[in-house]
Amino acid sequence: MATEASVAPVRAKDVAPRVLASIYPEEFAKRFNGRVKRQLGNVFGLSNFGVNLTTLEPGAISALRHAHSKQDEFVYILEGEATLTTNAGTKMLSSGMCVGFRAGTGDAHQLSNTGVSTLVYLEVGDRTPGDSAFYPDDDIRAILNAQGVWEFEHKDGRKYR
Amino acid sequence: MATEASVAPVRAKDVAPRVLASIYPEEFAKRFNGRVKRQLGNVFGLSNFGVNLTTLEPGAISALRHAHSKQDEFVYILEGEATLTTNAGTKMLSSGMCVGFRAGTGDAHQLSNTGVSTLVYLEVGDRTPGDSAFYPDDDIRAILNAQGVWEFEHKDGRKYR
Repeated sequence: MATEASVAPVRAKDVAPRVLASIYPEEFAKRFNGRVKRQLGNVFGLSNFGVNLTTLEPGAISALRHAHSKQDEFVYILEGEATLTTNAGTKMLSSGMCVGFRAGTGDAHQLSNTGVSTLVYLEVGDRTPGDSAFYPDDDIRAILNAQGVWEFEHKDGRKYR
Repeated sequence: MATEASVAPVRAKDVAPRVLASIYPEEFAKRFNGRVKRQLGNVFGLSNFGVNLTTLEPGAISALRHAHSKQDEFVYILEGEATLTTNAGTKMLSSGMCVGFRAGTGDAHQLSNTGVSTLVYLEVGDRTPGDSAFYPDDDIRAILNAQGVWEFEHKDGRKYR
């Protein structure tokens, strides 16, 4: 008699969206309308890296434009078209394209859905401790604390509440 | 004047396949006919995790069935159908489905293309040092050495040449 595998694959789009719309301070939260993240890696208890299935409606953005000091990131486009903005300018990505953001370069990145259809992509990021994030366009900086939680402050060091 | 982003996205299928058909000892290499890996993360210099676009022709397998002690793995099916085999049995995955393999469970996994069309998937794995891999079905075990290179030996400790 056939038996079933002990780890259960899931259809990515069936995973419940993350409840929290954004981990940024409330001042920035309204910029994240139209963004939905499904935390696929968490479904399987992965702890060394995260994988999200992220959906951006037209006009939505992936994140505040940022660069990580220690954590790598990778994006693979499944559906739709994305505009990538980095320090140097913009590029387009379509389905089947990918891009990686190596830690420590200082080159800040952001994806935005500048198209007319829904953008769907996979994003991967690791969990290297001691990470921080730099935001060239906004008055914010982020530090990953010893508990693995992101703390946000203004560029002059005042904490966001 | 618009300028171009400083990181250059690529079409995943345009990335050159890995030259080495398999990192396993030569005795096992012939089992990996029909498997092609494109190392997407390496294109962007990522070092904390790897992302491969892997293609399996009908009959091909992802790897010897194995479990990692410290490194997590994640798979997302892009095209075709896969059979997942774990310690407990088998399950099917189709396009849009994903599965993760948490380190340290001892539950060994393998994907195989039991369908009639080409199977294409993304696989993600981290680079946690001190990892080892256990292979329940084959006379092999693997240890990631201090240089980050996999070393293979028989289960009685004899090295594979």
